[in-house]
Amino acid sequence: MKIVIVGGVAGGMSAATRMRRLDESAEIVVFERGHYVSFANCGLPYYVGGVITDRAELLLQTPESLRARFRLDVRIDHEVTGIDRAGQTVSVRNTLTGEESIEGYDRLILAAGATTRSEPLDFGLATHTLRTVDDVDHIDAVLAAVDGSPSAVVIGGGFIGLEAVDNLVHRGVHVTLVQRGPQILTPLDPEMAAPVVADLRAHGVDVRLGTHVVGSDAPVDSAGTAATGLLLSDGSLVPADLVIDATGVRPDTSLAAAAGLRIGDSGGIWVDETQATSDPRIFAVGDGALKTDAVGGAGALVTMAGLANRHGRAAADTIAGRPDAAEPAVGTGIVGVFDLTVAMVGWNEQRLVAAGRAHRIVHTHPSSHAGYFPGAEQMAIKLLIDADTDAILGAQIVGGSGVDKRIDVIATAMAAGLGASALSRLELAYAPQYGSAKDAINQLGYVADNLLHGTTRSVQWHELSAELAAGASLVDVRTPAEFAAGHLPDARNLNLDELRARHAELPAGPLIVHCQVGQRGHTAARLLSQLGHDVRNLDGGYRTWLAGQAADAAVVAAAAEVLAEGIPV
Amino acid sequence: MKIVIVGGVAGGMSAATRMRRLDESAEIVVFERGHYVSFANCGLPYYVGGVITDRAELLLQTPESLRARFRLDVRIDHEVTGIDRAGQTVSVRNTLTGEESIEGYDRLILAAGATTRSEPLDFGLATHTLRTVDDVDHIDAVLAAVDGSPSAVVIGGGFIGLEAVDNLVHRGVHVTLVQRGPQILTPLDPEMAAPVVADLRAHGVDVRLGTHVVGSDAPVDSAGTAATGLLLSDGSLVPADLVIDATGVRPDTSLAAAAGLRIGDSGGIWVDETQATSDPRIFAVGDGALKTDAVGGAGALVTMAGLANRHGRAAADTIAGRPDAAEPAVGTGIVGVFDLTVAMVGWNEQRLVAAGRAHRIVHTHPSSHAGYFPGAEQMAIKLLIDADTDAILGAQIVGGSGVDKRIDVIATAMAAGLGASALSRLELAYAPQYGSAKDAINQLGYVADNLLHGTTRSVQWHELSAELAAGASLVDVRTPAEFAAGHLPDARNLNLDELRARHAELPAGPLIVHCQVGQRGHTAARLLSQLGHDVRNLDGGYRTWLAGQAADAAVVAAAAEVLAEGIPV
Repeated sequence: MKIVIVGGVAGGMSAATRMRRLDESAEIVVFERGHYVSFANCGLPYYVGGVITDRAELLLQTPESLRARFRLDVRIDHEVTGIDRAGQTVSVRNTLTGEESIEGYDRLILAAGATTRSEPLDFGLATHTLRTVDDVDHIDAVLAAVDGSPSAVVIGGGFIGLEAVDNLVHRGVHVTLVQRGPQILTPLDPEMAAPVVADLRAHGVDVRLGTHVVGSDAPVDSAGTAATGLLLSDGSLVPADLVIDATGVRPDTSLAAAAGLRIGDSGGIWVDETQATSDPRIFAVGDGALKTDAVGGAGALVTMAGLANRHGRAAADTIAGRPDAAEPAVGTGIVGVFDLTVAMVGWNEQRLVAAGRAHRIVHTHPSSHAGYFPGAEQMAIKLLIDADTDAILGAQIVGGSGVDKRIDVIATAMAAGLGASALSRLELAYAPQYGSAKDAINQLGYVADNLLHGTTRSVQWHELSAELAAGASLVDVRTPAEFAAGHLPDARNLNLDELRARHAELPAGPLIVHCQVGQRGHTAARLLSQLGHDVRNLDGGYRTWLAGQAADAAVVAAAAEVLAEGIPV
Repeated sequence: MKIVIVGGVAGGMSAATRMRRLDESAEIVVFERGHYVSFANCGLPYYVGGVITDRAELLLQTPESLRARFRLDVRIDHEVTGIDRAGQTVSVRNTLTGEESIEGYDRLILAAGATTRSEPLDFGLATHTLRTVDDVDHIDAVLAAVDGSPSAVVIGGGFIGLEAVDNLVHRGVHVTLVQRGPQILTPLDPEMAAPVVADLRAHGVDVRLGTHVVGSDAPVDSAGTAATGLLLSDGSLVPADLVIDATGVRPDTSLAAAAGLRIGDSGGIWVDETQATSDPRIFAVGDGALKTDAVGGAGALVTMAGLANRHGRAAADTIAGRPDAAEPAVGTGIVGVFDLTVAMVGWNEQRLVAAGRAHRIVHTHPSSHAGYFPGAEQMAIKLLIDADTDAILGAQIVGGSGVDKRIDVIATAMAAGLGASALSRLELAYAPQYGSAKDAINQLGYVADNLLHGTTRSVQWHELSAELAAGASLVDVRTPAEFAAGHLPDARNLNLDELRARHAELPAGPLIVHCQVGQRGHTAARLLSQLGHDVRNLDGGYRTWLAGQAADAAVVAAAAEVLAEGIPV
């Protein structure tokens, strides 16, 4: 059995090493078009930032180490240029010598990953991606060549873009982040992304939302030194010794498409649950292959390293005669930006709304651990729940310590099919430095359970204006001191602890109550409801509403800028 | 409806507040025999240690705040002394005035928790427990009265005992930890507990295993100052300005038993899945009530704050006419000791062996996050798997950062009924500062999957001697440098990367291979197996074996000491 693998990083290398452990006699050839195999691509931004200082740390394996341990025939600087499915061969080009050759296969695994989404932009300035060891070397060289304090423009506020921003700032670079749409981190809903923008700005990043690059200029500054800059759609010129293109990736399907393999509507290589393509002798894994999405079903693009590794291993299992069907993907992701951790799984509200999926929403702001123990940090959590089945459809978390733990627990519950209410019953490890007796996750479950049973009814931040316009009255049940420090327009203040005695003072008609984060609001809503009022709780309280306003303001400001330029968002 | 609740901390107060939110009209009376309600009992050791400095932080609620917000009638310093089930009354004694009274109820909730397990020990020295705010004040007073550097003896190396040790050392106290059995932290297996003892000793704690207190002495030191000390079963005298009794707790069932309520074999109050006792008008929750154990079934004692809170809330739900059946408890626990975090869930190996449950075992030593990112810490994980069903039966983790996350994911998977192999398919959040593309949890799943399918066969550290005696040969596949730095007796060294070429040099007959942590050993076992050898992998590698030896040494030393005294362990 001869197995040829195209791509020698996450998915390809997992397939190759598992294949060898299962079949000592197989001939295994890995073609990698780059100069490195099995490198730590998720570590590249941190090498740029000087957080990872030893370049050798990034290079997990070499062709030599893989030959010694796994008897793999790894050929770097070799690009596979075509597949002859009938003849079961691939054509290969040595990118250093230009030499062409033909390699036969019994089974072929495509693990070439993704390529940058955008066509190369012609700014008159070279742009850099951040996907390979070579990219990092180029970026390093550009920054090292700058006299004084360098400046950079990062285009695209997704995961890689934000990691680039964080690391460039860490290295002392002045950074402008340019985001074409009104919001960074589009897997988040706007009220969850807004605090991240605020944090970027607090760290000196010049964030431009609803903006794009329209050209470049090379003005001469007052000292007579040649500087370089990019022209943005808002008419401004921003300094740019370095331009990083982080506008996203698309599956690299060129080989598969040219060979007539089935390509899905969303642009990835179609595979069945054993990673086989439409040709049963050819398999595909990683960012280039389609996944089945746990919420949306088959044909999805989910570009995560963990899935690439897992499916690479599964393809080897299938080839070795022990097929291991892939689970639907929940798409767990995480990114660290300065002191924030941002994590998500599943679908967001915008996507559910667009798909017409009936859902319930929970916003909470729990502590990372018991509030009475030093160092507790508040996080914001949003949970999306199937309105018909109570299934968990997605979650988003923004905060400091403990965010990664909570998203992993939710991802596990979601994958296991636990309902949102069942989160209340999870036994999570509690000592005061690690969590709470009613952990953040349990609290989500309790709110979900109250919504499920109609014990609580809630209003979302973006529904509030319409509700008030329709005649509802807003009651802020926080203390007078909290109210005085900042409150919602049109809110009247009546402290929760006086509500029982003074509720008759409230206006007739529908009431919306709120507190700081939603918990006292729930107690108020239960009390007023039993006292005969028609009452709902503002989900997530003042904090979520504030974040929503910030998001709205960003949308409004971005739209205004774009409209002033006459360019559609 | 009048509800009387006995006990005003975790379970009782959760019941009271939930009851109010569900029923504004109910009369709710809470009797608490102590002087404080709803205090942070899990924070008490950290107040002793000066980690929590503001005493007010520990006092989460007062009778006044609970009256204002929830219209609760909370009576502190009131002890319930009897239940008249026929008359539906309780007798109550004011512990300050001695005044006796009778209180009627429609529903009664028993949430009095646990009491110390041991009979008061007569050492001639006062012992202190660490369960109430008063306890903390007493300990504080004792330590403050010592001239110079105080010394303490902590009796019992369980969760509270270790938190006491950690916090006393943090406060500058010299601590001796006395453990009657051969091992601290008995929810762990010995090879998992041994590194904790090493860490305690590295922090200057005098750990005495297999030892108990036999009396006290009050010698006069060289300066003529009166000192106090405890005599131990090993004949030594240890200094003890303070003695903390952390020998464990037992359910406080005195009230229930006197009233003729059903008590389970293991000593807790019997309840059904809605928390009702054998009298349908009386409920019990928290440390005093029995739980259904996820591994062992009904009638278990699981004393965790999270369960107390959850079941308190559930009792209120039941009383309000919306019963919420309790899930079986998995018993997740965690404790921080100096720089270590120790966590566990479910059953350990010793308990499974004692119960005759067929099981598989996995030991791993993964990184807290990607090894190429700074700050990764190694942890030790042990997973127990049902040999018939692949169900997760338990887990133990000892390490630094990331331990709490991994135990929570395993506890969630276990509660949701995911098999051990399914851990390989979980999508856990990966960026290099948070985890690995193949996370510690995924790795456990892969090993479990390999055991399930017979792809790997393993040998446990405590089985090795017998296997070698029966004729197996031991092959260390680490590098010669690793071998030279320390190796197993009787092992021959043959580096994994040379194994393919030199395997013919290995002796005929069964082979046991091992590496540092088990991963290279697995690759070696796969290779040798395909080359025709009868081979198994030493589970957890050299590290687990070393930890096992340390545990064995502790057992041996402790047994020797105890035998020398003629006292059974």
